[in-house]
Amino acid sequence: MFRYALKIEYDGTLFHGWQKQSQLKTVQGEINLALRNLDNLSEGVTGAGRTDAGVHATGQVAHVDMNTEWEPIKLQNALNYYLKPRPIAIVGAVKVNSDFHSRFSAQERYYLFKILIRPAPLTLDKNRFWHVRRHLDVKKMVEGASYLIGRHDFTTFRSSSCQAKSPIKTIEKIIINETEIELGSVIEIRLKAQSFLHNQVRSIAGTLEKVGSGNWVPEQVGAALSKKNRTACGPVAPPMGLYLTKINYREPIFRDRIDPENI
Amino acid sequence: MFRYALKIEYDGTLFHGWQKQSQLKTVQGEINLALRNLDNLSEGVTGAGRTDAGVHATGQVAHVDMNTEWEPIKLQNALNYYLKPRPIAIVGAVKVNSDFHSRFSAQERYYLFKILIRPAPLTLDKNRFWHVRRHLDVKKMVEGASYLIGRHDFTTFRSSSCQAKSPIKTIEKIIINETEIELGSVIEIRLKAQSFLHNQVRSIAGTLEKVGSGNWVPEQVGAALSKKNRTACGPVAPPMGLYLTKINYREPIFRDRIDPENI
Repeated sequence: MFRYALKIEYDGTLFHGWQKQSQLKTVQGEINLALRNLDNLSEGVTGAGRTDAGVHATGQVAHVDMNTEWEPIKLQNALNYYLKPRPIAIVGAVKVNSDFHSRFSAQERYYLFKILIRPAPLTLDKNRFWHVRRHLDVKKMVEGASYLIGRHDFTTFRSSSCQAKSPIKTIEKIIINETEIELGSVIEIRLKAQSFLHNQVRSIAGTLEKVGSGNWVPEQVGAALSKKNRTACGPVAPPMGLYLTKINYREPIFRDRIDPENI
Repeated sequence: MFRYALKIEYDGTLFHGWQKQSQLKTVQGEINLALRNLDNLSEGVTGAGRTDAGVHATGQVAHVDMNTEWEPIKLQNALNYYLKPRPIAIVGAVKVNSDFHSRFSAQERYYLFKILIRPAPLTLDKNRFWHVRRHLDVKKMVEGASYLIGRHDFTTFRSSSCQAKSPIKTIEKIIINETEIELGSVIEIRLKAQSFLHNQVRSIAGTLEKVGSGNWVPEQVGAALSKKNRTACGPVAPPMGLYLTKINYREPIFRDRIDPENI
């Protein structure tokens, strides 16, 4: 057996998430279909993060065991050939040791949540942003986010169906930037943690939007967190604004050109 | 009669261009359909630029005569309501004098052509860029473009079906920038002229790509121009990289927040 790590980019709009499901198109399921053209004994790919329906990735990582040895770039190109015309691309492939596990070996995960603020409906940017029509005060969002940085019980900010054993997670960073564009502005929320709970980033984004719009004062984020109660959370933001951008391992697996904090 | 200027954004991917055609979905045709809900006597919109199938716009301008007076923002919102879910948005509306003509009053037109260079197929950026897999030398592209700036006979660089009376046009600016991205780079070619010939920007983009890749030396662009012969042109670049970004009139019509040179 030969193990490979794959770096994967996808437009999640038309998929029922990452995780394979019978009858439904998922990113993992489509990659496994493409794989069968190369190795019909392969058990398929195991991904680092189970993104939900509509969520995108520019840096998902998966591993796969192949019965024959492949030159990584040839494996990448062959998979991309069979994946066409689906909006899924293998953007990196590396041979790894058999003890590498895309999910369990992951040390840091990066997510990006993008909000586009303008009055008119989206056209070219449809399904790429959460479209918000009201002004958001980024300073207040940064203040609200400060309550979430560090090690906390995130029961308030995880889906009631989250399967993680413990609700305790450590968010290392939340960076929020606003950029003026022709017809409004774009707000980008970048989060870094070793791992996240189910719906955690979208719960945080939805809550911070409430703070930015003035419906909540920043201190309410801290109060909601201490309640450790799902019903204290703001609304869950929609999936199309969310991107899984990067996963880091003990040793760098893929050659990266750009500082991960800016992806 | 009350005349309004509309600023229009669209994803051109699934339309057969701007210009109305019987049986085919076009941007003008869809806006006229939406208009009929508001004023069934209106003759419809007249656009400033006839973009081809697959070409996008962030700053198309059209004018329309209405039989009743509208508050511009209400006209804009009502049109956007009826345009949904089509990827067309009215992003500005202004009442104008009856001598304003979106096409004939236009003083300056801006186009942007976007190239994304990387080995892997595009997913999130599909239909938003011309995907090129080889390295392009931007310095050489700038040198090649320098032969096209100014007043010239552009017979080489216009479609054989171009209906303009004269092939003589003045290109005021061609600005080319490259930005490094995670997996490759983005090249943006910005062009400014009072008006362009049919397929002129795509003919220029396709020719400059040949220069960037080293298939042509920059001087060949000047030689091709002097031939005044369509067959001397490089290949026409595909439509999905092209954006009509801005049209300027003698007096500013829409309030713009950002320098047009950077749109």
